[in-house]
Amino acid sequence: MHELIRQLFVKYFRNRWLETAGDAAVLPLESGHISFTTDSYVVDPLFFPGGDIGKLAICGTVNDLAVTGALPLFISVGFIIEEGFPVKDLESIVRSMAVTAKQAGVQIVAGDTKVVNKGKCDKLFINTSGMGQVPEKCIHVASADLVKPGDQIIISGYTGDHGMAILSQRKGFPMKTRLKSDCTPLNGLIGTILEHINQVRFMRDPTRGGVATVLCELAEGRSFGVLIREPDLPVREEVTGLCEMFGFDPLYLPNEGKVVMVVDPAVSSQVVDIMHRHPEGEHAAVIGEIIDENPGRVVLETVTGGRRIIHMLTGEQLPRIC
Amino acid sequence: MHELIRQLFVKYFRNRWLETAGDAAVLPLESGHISFTTDSYVVDPLFFPGGDIGKLAICGTVNDLAVTGALPLFISVGFIIEEGFPVKDLESIVRSMAVTAKQAGVQIVAGDTKVVNKGKCDKLFINTSGMGQVPEKCIHVASADLVKPGDQIIISGYTGDHGMAILSQRKGFPMKTRLKSDCTPLNGLIGTILEHINQVRFMRDPTRGGVATVLCELAEGRSFGVLIREPDLPVREEVTGLCEMFGFDPLYLPNEGKVVMVVDPAVSSQVVDIMHRHPEGEHAAVIGEIIDENPGRVVLETVTGGRRIIHMLTGEQLPRIC
Repeated sequence: MHELIRQLFVKYFRNRWLETAGDAAVLPLESGHISFTTDSYVVDPLFFPGGDIGKLAICGTVNDLAVTGALPLFISVGFIIEEGFPVKDLESIVRSMAVTAKQAGVQIVAGDTKVVNKGKCDKLFINTSGMGQVPEKCIHVASADLVKPGDQIIISGYTGDHGMAILSQRKGFPMKTRLKSDCTPLNGLIGTILEHINQVRFMRDPTRGGVATVLCELAEGRSFGVLIREPDLPVREEVTGLCEMFGFDPLYLPNEGKVVMVVDPAVSSQVVDIMHRHPEGEHAAVIGEIIDENPGRVVLETVTGGRRIIHMLTGEQLPRIC
Repeated sequence: MHELIRQLFVKYFRNRWLETAGDAAVLPLESGHISFTTDSYVVDPLFFPGGDIGKLAICGTVNDLAVTGALPLFISVGFIIEEGFPVKDLESIVRSMAVTAKQAGVQIVAGDTKVVNKGKCDKLFINTSGMGQVPEKCIHVASADLVKPGDQIIISGYTGDHGMAILSQRKGFPMKTRLKSDCTPLNGLIGTILEHINQVRFMRDPTRGGVATVLCELAEGRSFGVLIREPDLPVREEVTGLCEMFGFDPLYLPNEGKVVMVVDPAVSSQVVDIMHRHPEGEHAAVIGEIIDENPGRVVLETVTGGRRIIHMLTGEQLPRIC
């Protein structure tokens, strides 16, 4: 099993670091700032419309790096595999990781595999960690320290596709849908924006906990508030419909190929224009702004014009969604 | 559960990067070479004499970095937790990670937690990834390109303690032992040696697959052979006895606090002396040398003076040992 897995990885992930690697890859790096992130993926099911756990793991880590302003460079992969997991499924997942890594321009440079007895894990879990180089001028986007009232909030497209796509694949979900996960690497889109625009104040990818969670974390403990306008939030009709039917809130649905950006009002339409020209940003929209009122809070202006406070999600709306 | 876990991590892992961190930590780094590694830990049992899965995860990653010549700096941690796992056990493991990280001088700067339903994983799995800075003069130790005949092979102490300590804790193991895992961070010991000695040619920590595997990987495809002398290999009497009784070979038993070094013959006694002055290297010994004969092979000179070829372990001698 181990030998077979090693061969799979060599076949699909081949690069000079993996080939010479012992216990760790030694990588060249310019001085400055490095972004470093980790995520474990336990998504159920492993294969879903629009992707699989392997694609998800690469996109998730690439995007976590990209939203700190980093140029994603190197990825490590740790597999925990249940004994008896079909090799053809593993190969398909590994291939998908290789394809996605290539698409994102990152190299898989370190790896580890553990096999556990049948029943000791659920098919396959993947951890990916990643590092990227952060240009000096982008260091602040990870901290949100430069965010101020008047700044505009932009999302790069429809929210909730990933969450609903996974959910609708689960056993017992009563509706057939044609929804696909939005799972995609965003470093291309984000890189283009950072290249042209110096006034990006903050970025985050709204994965677990969705847009609401990103904005609550942004506002928490700050002297400003966050206003979002419900009618401006891009949500597919199908997602809205399913949410109404099954009691979910699109604001909390996870995405795997969207970015929320806070930018200076002077550049917000330019940022949206750049997004619109990218396949990953076609449906981008300004969804709100940073305000003086309600410091530390996120306020939603509803379709009917009312206002309500948005709270951090307590617990998990959708377990094993990523 | 998530909130509780977050509080635990903040309590024990507190540092300025974790506090400001969003999806990734942004870290300052000098230019040059970076060592990057990942490992998942699925050890069973989670608590064992000499350590626990948390200590193991930190030591394992610190040591994987240290043997590439790197100064270990930053660690990420990914937890996959089975629903219902006792919080007091989790706290004890997290505390042990914090203590070990402090001992090793590394900072835990990024983390992730996934909780899966009861029965979907076996209590707790941990992934740690790590990065360290490699001084220019140490870059070669990761590659073994400078190793040549005459070089001496040193191990920093008794081999096999970790493997036997874990095994003897397993259900159904018929013997009580007082063996403890050797699980410890080695960056102090290794750092001291690299500071004083420029002729370290290669290093590796003999974890999964033991000393035999490290040496087989070193020799594989090379124009030199590796000779080891069985009588010179430090093995505790208790480990030797258990191995004979249950059919294990100490050469393949995993360690979590040992390093195998290949050094220029001119400095080998000096390296052993330095090791002897360190608590982690008290029982260090020269166990063999690089030879002209048997290129690509590892040859064992047995207690009786015979010679046999040592092969790579096929399959795993001891599953879930790390």
